[in-house]
Amino acid sequence: MEASALQFFIACVTAAGFGLAIAASFCGLAQGIGLKAAVEGVARNPESSGKVTVTMLIGLAMIESLCIYALVVSLILIYAHPQAEVIASLLGAK
Amino acid sequence: MEASALQFFIACVTAAGFGLAIAASFCGLAQGIGLKAAVEGVARNPESSGKVTVTMLIGLAMIESLCIYALVVSLILIYAHPQAEVIASLLGAK
Amino acid sequence: MEASALQFFIACVTAAGFGLAIAASFCGLAQGIGLKAAVEGVARNPESSGKVTVTMLIGLAMIESLCIYALVVSLILIYAHPQAEVIASLLGAK
Amino acid sequence: MEASALQFFIACVTAAGFGLAIAASFCGLAQGIGLKAAVEGVARNPESSGKVTVTMLIGLAMIESLCIYALVVSLILIYAHPQAEVIASLLGAK
Amino acid sequence: MEASALQFFIACVTAAGFGLAIAASFCGLAQGIGLKAAVEGVARNPESSGKVTVTMLIGLAMIESLCIYALVVSLILIYAHPQAEVIASLLGAK
Amino acid sequence: MEASALQFFIACVTAAGFGLAIAASFCGLAQGIGLKAAVEGVARNPESSGKVTVTMLIGLAMIESLCIYALVVSLILIYAHPQAEVIASLLGAK
Amino acid sequence: MEASALQFFIACVTAAGFGLAIAASFCGLAQGIGLKAAVEGVARNPESSGKVTVTMLIGLAMIESLCIYALVVSLILIYAHPQAEVIASLLGAK
Amino acid sequence: MEASALQFFIACVTAAGFGLAIAASFCGLAQGIGLKAAVEGVARNPESSGKVTVTMLIGLAMIESLCIYALVVSLILIYAHPQAEVIASLLGAK
Amino acid sequence: MEASALQFFIACVTAAGFGLAIAASFCGLAQGIGLKAAVEGVARNPESSGKVTVTMLIGLAMIESLCIYALVVSLILIYAHPQAEVIASLLGAK
Amino acid sequence: MEASALQFFIACVTAAGFGLAIAASFCGLAQGIGLKAAVEGVARNPESSGKVTVTMLIGLAMIESLCIYALVVSLILIYAHPQAEVIASLLGAK
Amino acid sequence: MEASALQFFIACVTAAGFGLAIAASFCGLAQGIGLKAAVEGVARNPESSGKVTVTMLIGLAMIESLCIYALVVSLILIYAHPQAEVIASLLGAK
Amino acid sequence: MEASALQFFIACVTAAGFGLAIAASFCGLAQGIGLKAAVEGVARNPESSGKVTVTMLIGLAMIESLCIYALVVSLILIYAHPQAEVIASLLGAK
Amino acid sequence: MEASALQFFIACVTAAGFGLAIAASFCGLAQGIGLKAAVEGVARNPESSGKVTVTMLIGLAMIESLCIYALVVSLILIYAHPQAEVIASLLGAK
Amino acid sequence: MEASALQFFIACVTAAGFGLAIAASFCGLAQGIGLKAAVEGVARNPESSGKVTVTMLIGLAMIESLCIYALVVSLILIYAHPQAEVIASLLGAK
Repeated sequence: MEASALQFFIACVTAAGFGLAIAASFCGLAQGIGLKAAVEGVARNPESSGKVTVTMLIGLAMIESLCIYALVVSLILIYAHPQAEVIASLLGAK
Repeated sequence: MEASALQFFIACVTAAGFGLAIAASFCGLAQGIGLKAAVEGVARNPESSGKVTVTMLIGLAMIESLCIYALVVSLILIYAHPQAEVIASLLGAK
Repeated sequence: MEASALQFFIACVTAAGFGLAIAASFCGLAQGIGLKAAVEGVARNPESSGKVTVTMLIGLAMIESLCIYALVVSLILIYAHPQAEVIASLLGAK
Repeated sequence: MEASALQFFIACVTAAGFGLAIAASFCGLAQGIGLKAAVEGVARNPESSGKVTVTMLIGLAMIESLCIYALVVSLILIYAHPQAEVIASLLGAK
Repeated sequence: MEASALQFFIACVTAAGFGLAIAASFCGLAQGIGLKAAVEGVARNPESSGKVTVTMLIGLAMIESLCIYALVVSLILIYAHPQAEVIASLLGAK
Repeated sequence: MEASALQFFIACVTAAGFGLAIAASFCGLAQGIGLKAAVEGVARNPESSGKVTVTMLIGLAMIESLCIYALVVSLILIYAHPQAEVIASLLGAK
Repeated sequence: MEASALQFFIACVTAAGFGLAIAASFCGLAQGIGLKAAVEGVARNPESSGKVTVTMLIGLAMIESLCIYALVVSLILIYAHPQAEVIASLLGAK
Repeated sequence: MEASALQFFIACVTAAGFGLAIAASFCGLAQGIGLKAAVEGVARNPESSGKVTVTMLIGLAMIESLCIYALVVSLILIYAHPQAEVIASLLGAK
Repeated sequence: MEASALQFFIACVTAAGFGLAIAASFCGLAQGIGLKAAVEGVARNPESSGKVTVTMLIGLAMIESLCIYALVVSLILIYAHPQAEVIASLLGAK
Repeated sequence: MEASALQFFIACVTAAGFGLAIAASFCGLAQGIGLKAAVEGVARNPESSGKVTVTMLIGLAMIESLCIYALVVSLILIYAHPQAEVIASLLGAK
Repeated sequence: MEASALQFFIACVTAAGFGLAIAASFCGLAQGIGLKAAVEGVARNPESSGKVTVTMLIGLAMIESLCIYALVVSLILIYAHPQAEVIASLLGAK
Repeated sequence: MEASALQFFIACVTAAGFGLAIAASFCGLAQGIGLKAAVEGVARNPESSGKVTVTMLIGLAMIESLCIYALVVSLILIYAHPQAEVIASLLGAK
Repeated sequence: MEASALQFFIACVTAAGFGLAIAASFCGLAQGIGLKAAVEGVARNPESSGKVTVTMLIGLAMIESLCIYALVVSLILIYAHPQAEVIASLLGAK
Repeated sequence: MEASALQFFIACVTAAGFGLAIAASFCGLAQGIGLKAAVEGVARNPESSGKVTVTMLIGLAMIESLCIYALVVSLILIYAHPQAEVIASLLGAK
């Protein structure tokens, strides 16, 4: 029984680690694309830097929020899965 | 029986973790593409920043909604799958 | 018998989770591409923003509809598969 | 015998879920590409918006039709496969 | 024997579902590329919209025909495979 | 023996379904690329539409011919494989 | 022995179906690229359409020849493989 | 039992090592994209270098934060997984 | 012994079918790229069509030669492999 | 027991070697992209080379930091994993 | 023993067939890229066609040489592998 | 026991060989991108070649450093892994 | 024992055949890219053809050298691997 | 024991052959990119050819050095792996 229970935690660990990594990767790329446009804009038109920075921050925050969702799900998988209690008790209950 | 029941929760965990990660990744990229255009627009034409920001937010919200769907399905898979009750009861019912 | 029945629910969960994720990802990208054009258009030509927004919303709605199809099929797979009743009864009927 | 019959429904579920997802993804991308051109056209030339919208809708409808084919086949696989009756009867006929 | 016969229907279902999905995806993309050019053309030169629409429709129809081929083969695989009769009779002939 | 014979029909079905799908996909893309050029050409230079359409149709026909080859081979695999007779007779010859 | 002989025909069928499909796909794409240039050329410079069409046809014919090679090999694999006779005789020789 | 417990640590190690690597890779690419725009901007318009550098640093910091999330999760998987204690005790408890 | 001998012919068939298909695909693409340039050149500068066609044909012939190498090796694998005689004699020598 | 313990070190070695390689690859690409912009900037505007080099170095340092994270985790996996002591002792404890 | 010896010839056949195919594919693409430039050059500047053709042929010959290396290795694998004699003698030595 | 110990060295060898290859590949590409910009810059503006070369060398050195990290880890895996001593002693300790 | 020894030669053959093919492919592509630039340069500026050809040949030679490395390693694997003697002697030493 | 020892040499051979091939491929591509820029530069500005060639050679040498690293590691894996002696002695020590 314990071998299967450990399989469950292995799946949690894999999904948490790789899932967050994938989300962070592409959200990072997305922020890089937005950042690129902002930096180009500021360099071309320095006096618009206030508005550009505000717009950029709104967008970066929304992209960040997507990554936060993945972070939250990863932490749920590590710390707060509803069946984790029951399954963990199988480990000690041989 | 329990080994199979754990297999079910493993599949839920995998689908929830990776599914959300994939959706967050590409929706993040999509928001990054939209953000890039908005930032470029504001930098080139600062007095249009109000309309640009509004249009951007409408679009970001619709992209966000797609990711929310995936988040909802992920949470359903973790917390509210209709057969989860029955299957979880198999764990304690040895 | 129950092990096989659980295999069925595992397949439903996997198809629902990943299927929706894939559809949401690419539809999100598509909306991002449309959004980019709309934002660029508004920034370049602010007085056309009404028509641009209307055209964008028609397109975003049609893309959203494709993702809704996938969401509907995902929910069917989780909650309303025609054989699910029969198969679920195999779980308790040992 | 039932294990194999369940394998059949698992294949149906997988093909329906992923097949529709793939079709919806790329048709969504295609609509996004069309939408992008339409929005750019309206922004650049607002008085042509009527004709542009009509042309766009014709195209979007044809792309949508391709996705509908996949949706129809998915629903056939879930609800109306010609051998499904016979195979489902194997489940209860132990 | 029945397990193998079910394997056959599983292969049919998989090939039909995914095959059509792949064909619909890329034909959809192709139509999107054609649509994009048509919409851009109409926006830039509205009085040519009649000829553009006709040319576009000829092309979309030919692309649609390729997808129809895949649809026909998918339906053949589901409803009219020449050996399906013989193989289906193996299911009930235990 | 029958299990192996069914394996043969499974391979035919898979090769026919996916083979045609792949060919239809990329030939569709190719037609989309050709169509795009034709539509752009007509929009930019409407009085050349006759010659453009003729050239386009020659090209589309040649691309279509490639897809027809794949369709023919798919139908051969389903209906007219030279060994199919012999192998099908193994099914009933238990 | 027959199971192995069937494996041989399965390999022939797979190689013939997918091989031709791959060749047809990319040769189709290649023809699409050539066609695109021809159509653009005719639209931009209608009086050169004779020479353009001739050049295009020479090129399309050479690309078609590559696909014909694959078609020939596919048909050899289905109808005229040198060892097919010997191997087919194994089927009836139980 | 210990073999399974080691499987758990293997999964942690794999997820930590590859997960962080993937996140670092793409966040690095994203920073490279932002950096490129900044350097181009400074080279084209040297007197805007202050504002450009500030904007760039805000963006790089936000991208860095995404990679830090992945680093934190990697370290949690190596040093602070909630079930690690219990599972590690299985190693010595033969 | 015969099963292994058939494995050898299966490998030959697979390598011949897919190998030629891959070579034909990419050489076809290469010819398409060359053709595109030639057609564009003729359309832009019709009086250079003689020299363009000659240059194009030299290039296409060299690309064709690469595909012929693959065709030759494919036919060697089907008809003239040095060990094929010995191995084929294993089939009848049970 | 030792076979499993060695599995653990194999996983560490694999994750360390490939993880660092992946991170170094893409961070290298990112630095290459940044470097390209800097070199272009210096060539186009040699008197800005001081500011360009400073900006470039800030960016390269931040990208380098991401790769250092992966290097640190790789070295932790090789030299300082918290359970490595316990597991290594299993090797000599036969 | 013979089964293993056949495995060796299977590996030779696979490496020869696919290896040459891969090399021919990409060298073909490379020649297509070079050809494209040459044809464009001749079309734009017909009186330079002599020098262009010479330069092109030098380049094509060097690319062809790379493919010849792969062809030589393929033929070595089929006809002249140093251990092939010994291994082939295992086939008849049952 | 020795079979497992050899597995460990196999993993080291694989990680060292492929890891370094991947890192060298992409760092090479990155250097190629940087080199391209430098050469273009020198050709366009020869008198800036001193500053360009210096900037290029700083960047190439930083990219080289990333590849050196991978080389160091590869050599550690081959020559200086902390557990290698213990594991190698298992080989002679049969 | 001989089966394993043959496995070794199979690995050599595979690595030699595919390794050289991969290296030849991409080095061929690289030469194609260099060739393209040279041909374009000669066509645009015919009197520079001497210097262009020299520069091109230096570059092509260095790329060729990389492919020669792979060819040398391939031939070492086929003809001169240090352990090949010992392993080959296992074949005859049954 | 010998089977495992051969596995080790198989891994060395695979890592050496493919690792060098991958590194040579991408470093070749990188050199091709650098070469392209140099050739274009010489063609556009022939009197800068001395400086361009020097800069190009510095860059090509650094890229070559990365490939040399991989070559060195490949040769180490074939000729000088520290445990190879011990493992090779296992072959004759039956």
